[in-house]
Amino acid sequence: MTFLFNSDARRGAIFADAFAKELPDVPFTMDAATVDPDAVRYLITWTAPEDLARYRNLEILFSIGAGVDQFRLDSVPEQVKIVRMVEEGIMRMMQEYVTLAVLALHRNLPGYLAQQRAGEWADITQPQAGSRRVGVLGLGQLGQAVLDRLKPFGFPLAGWSRSPRRIAGVTCHHGELGLDEMLAVSDILICLLPLTEGTRGLLDAGLFGKLPEGAALVHTGRGPQLDHEALVAALDGGHLSAAMIDVTDPEPLPASHRFWSHPKVILTPHVASVTQPATAAQAVVENIRRYRAGLDPIGLVDWLRGY
Amino acid sequence: MTFLFNSDARRGAIFADAFAKELPDVPFTMDAATVDPDAVRYLITWTAPEDLARYRNLEILFSIGAGVDQFRLDSVPEQVKIVRMVEEGIMRMMQEYVTLAVLALHRNLPGYLAQQRAGEWADITQPQAGSRRVGVLGLGQLGQAVLDRLKPFGFPLAGWSRSPRRIAGVTCHHGELGLDEMLAVSDILICLLPLTEGTRGLLDAGLFGKLPEGAALVHTGRGPQLDHEALVAALDGGHLSAAMIDVTDPEPLPASHRFWSHPKVILTPHVASVTQPATAAQAVVENIRRYRAGLDPIGLVDWLRGY
Repeated sequence: MTFLFNSDARRGAIFADAFAKELPDVPFTMDAATVDPDAVRYLITWTAPEDLARYRNLEILFSIGAGVDQFRLDSVPEQVKIVRMVEEGIMRMMQEYVTLAVLALHRNLPGYLAQQRAGEWADITQPQAGSRRVGVLGLGQLGQAVLDRLKPFGFPLAGWSRSPRRIAGVTCHHGELGLDEMLAVSDILICLLPLTEGTRGLLDAGLFGKLPEGAALVHTGRGPQLDHEALVAALDGGHLSAAMIDVTDPEPLPASHRFWSHPKVILTPHVASVTQPATAAQAVVENIRRYRAGLDPIGLVDWLRGY
Repeated sequence: MTFLFNSDARRGAIFADAFAKELPDVPFTMDAATVDPDAVRYLITWTAPEDLARYRNLEILFSIGAGVDQFRLDSVPEQVKIVRMVEEGIMRMMQEYVTLAVLALHRNLPGYLAQQRAGEWADITQPQAGSRRVGVLGLGQLGQAVLDRLKPFGFPLAGWSRSPRRIAGVTCHHGELGLDEMLAVSDILICLLPLTEGTRGLLDAGLFGKLPEGAALVHTGRGPQLDHEALVAALDGGHLSAAMIDVTDPEPLPASHRFWSHPKVILTPHVASVTQPATAAQAVVENIRRYRAGLDPIGLVDWLRGY
């Protein structure tokens, strides 16, 4: 019942340590070339290897990242459980990034950066936090963690998910009708959705049109969810005021793309949240313990939902 | 016992409403030209009027802002109490701005903005919050409010004040020796000090040299506390990595100043925190009630300290 680690050696060394200490009865290897494929019960990787089928006794395929959209789910044998990375480090970094983005948009940082470039010293009028409505698309672990950090600032908070949720201090919407309700009250919209067939292209001209005049966007989901041209048009047309974008399609973004130079866009290179090896190793160890005790691993992917 | 409001009419109207409702027995006016000077017991203003001495029965001089450095304290008659503005709106905005600034510096936003201008898509390595030490100069109401917002992110927090303080979750330093101790462990240094003779020019080359290599500065105190040329030199020399600056000397900052175009400086035009008229009016009403009940107003200035 070997654990095969298929990612960079620096992170692998940290995983190796954790397994040696916490799960000494589970053989750990980073060497796909010499491992007995029949012995491999657990595999952690970013993209699924071409020869996944050779691990005939594979029980769990762990993603080393928060998403599983890089796997082709239909190429993974049916009996293999797929598990997303749910770990404290990813959540902490996403809390930081989204709080930074919401405060930057709330306090007109893109406008002040433009003024700085122009050498202009002037106030920009803005509402107080109590009148700046923030809406979060996606109320999973990341969405809830982000809402926790935003609460103390006093923004009216709303959230949207596929199925109903209840979160203290957050107006929760769900389903197709609920989406329009939430968009109508989101002065700052945050996308934290996983990439699925249902969310591909979701952030398009139609969706932007349902946001209040002057709304702003924080995009920390996945690049293919965003119609890039529609965002540029909404910013240029003035219906949207600004955007902070961490994910694009493709990545890296081509040098000629408007986002690079757009005065209303702050662009970061997919750095909002990165798996932290120490906490990730601990999360995987815990998940193997849960699995052996007959419990579902945390982050178990539902094939029908696609995440 | 008239209250004379000497500031803009828009805010004055909000104060007038609050006084009519909450202190109907205190006559309220915005008209210095027609008021009987002997009737004026309370005056709120930003700079003290030239003819302050004509209000012979003045009891309290309220600043409409968080600072009183714009008053020449020695020109105010001895029997007049001077009161700083301590109100929820100022504190909320300062919490937002400083959290934004700390997260922007922690997550290398100045570096990513430079990369965006250059069309470069690349990670910048950074420590996790648990290894990013944050130090706050000034542990009054604003400093404590800011620390409250920073706590959930997991930064090791320290603070410095003139006299000893105890704040849960914050390593508190004080006095001259304590200052060096705190500087040595401040990867991000925040200045929230009032402007006094003791703090004028405090942020100079000597102070920057006591910060760890690669430290960053958030300046939301007062412009004359910062040696602007020393900051540029520390950034250009590489000892400091970045700065987010809201106050300068003079204001507005001259068009030729290096801060405008420096790639490691984010500059905002003294907008971190602005008195909010509704909450400010409420704070002044409460302070007059306290004063009439024989209590010290909140924000009472100590002449010896100068704030």
